[in-house]
Amino acid sequence: MTVYTDYLWFKTKNRREIVRITDEVAAIVGKSGVTEGMALVSAMHITAGVYVNDWESGLIEDLQEWAERLAPARPDYRHHQTGEDNADAHLKRTLLGHQVVLPITKGALDLGPWEQVFYAEFDGRRRKRVIVKVMGQ
Amino acid sequence: MTVYTDYLWFKTKNRREIVRITDEVAAIVGKSGVTEGMALVSAMHITAGVYVNDWESGLIEDLQEWAERLAPARPDYRHHQTGEDNADAHLKRTLLGHQVVLPITKGALDLGPWEQVFYAEFDGRRRKRVIVKVMGQ
Amino acid sequence: MTVYTDYLWFKTKNRREIVRITDEVAAIVGKSGVTEGMALVSAMHITAGVYVNDWESGLIEDLQEWAERLAPARPDYRHHQTGEDNADAHLKRTLLGHQVVLPITKGALDLGPWEQVFYAEFDGRRRKRVIVKVMGQ
Repeated sequence: MTVYTDYLWFKTKNRREIVRITDEVAAIVGKSGVTEGMALVSAMHITAGVYVNDWESGLIEDLQEWAERLAPARPDYRHHQTGEDNADAHLKRTLLGHQVVLPITKGALDLGPWEQVFYAEFDGRRRKRVIVKVMGQ
Repeated sequence: MTVYTDYLWFKTKNRREIVRITDEVAAIVGKSGVTEGMALVSAMHITAGVYVNDWESGLIEDLQEWAERLAPARPDYRHHQTGEDNADAHLKRTLLGHQVVLPITKGALDLGPWEQVFYAEFDGRRRKRVIVKVMGQ
Repeated sequence: MTVYTDYLWFKTKNRREIVRITDEVAAIVGKSGVTEGMALVSAMHITAGVYVNDWESGLIEDLQEWAERLAPARPDYRHHQTGEDNADAHLKRTLLGHQVVLPITKGALDLGPWEQVFYAEFDGRRRKRVIVKVMGQ
């Protein structure tokens, strides 16, 4: 049994940004030597998410607009009484999810034809991490 | 350590359909021989989800109406400029979740009294897959 | 390879309550002896969730208000024709998520600086369980 850990670092230019990370995760899986198992990909900051969906720019904008509609940026969140201004980012990452578990089969990520892995930043412009934990044989 | 992989295939009659898959997943866990571990159950298509909730027809309809209210089918998504018409399906599967990890204890799925596993199809009438990856001892 | 299972029990005073469980999960990971691996933390009842987010009372209230706005308590859910009155709890737990997988590195939960694990009860005042399944080496 092998357990292999690595981290991806992000510092996005914009406060909100969607970054495709499928290749980076696949590279870590390759380095791990695991051919049958699972990879956990999980945002370590609570204003960012990780999700699997389509690599199509229109849909990525639809997802961002949708998150804004359901979890809008607003001044009047209670969380902002602490001096923060990012309560919507905490809610948006809850909506999109903050982690995925990816299957590994025959030495590669076992993804469907259109599955791509994304990092969803909702309060960026500072260094943040995603853990990739690979487990299997 | 054992890692065992199988796939469930779906081709629903209706575009949107909720299908209970607890027994199919349990059968795969049985075939795997794993008595202590976890089973990842993950939709491989990005317009379908997998979730755990109640096996009660009223609630299943409530869930579908709720998904429609929060992520409505509409013509004006940006994704539709590619010729697609299923942006709402991508959002609905994000809302309900696209995967679950089920614990396996003493040779069986270790589920609470009302936990049932469902496949949630939002753009069906074509062949689509769910991966079931069992890992443990 | 080690697989270790334990359960957390809850009986909240209020129907809706958010309970921090990071320390309880960490204690189970400690007992498991696993130093590299993953811990699945999953609500076994379908009107409760488990999520990772901020340990700040304002944000916890924001999350609860947000769940109420997107999945309001209402009399007219179809599920209520069975005599139940908790359809909103089923939807709220879907929104927040019902399970997380936590990485374990060098003998401890490998969490970001602000990550905390919470049990989200939406239909409490009765005994309910969360499973913690630790797997690794």
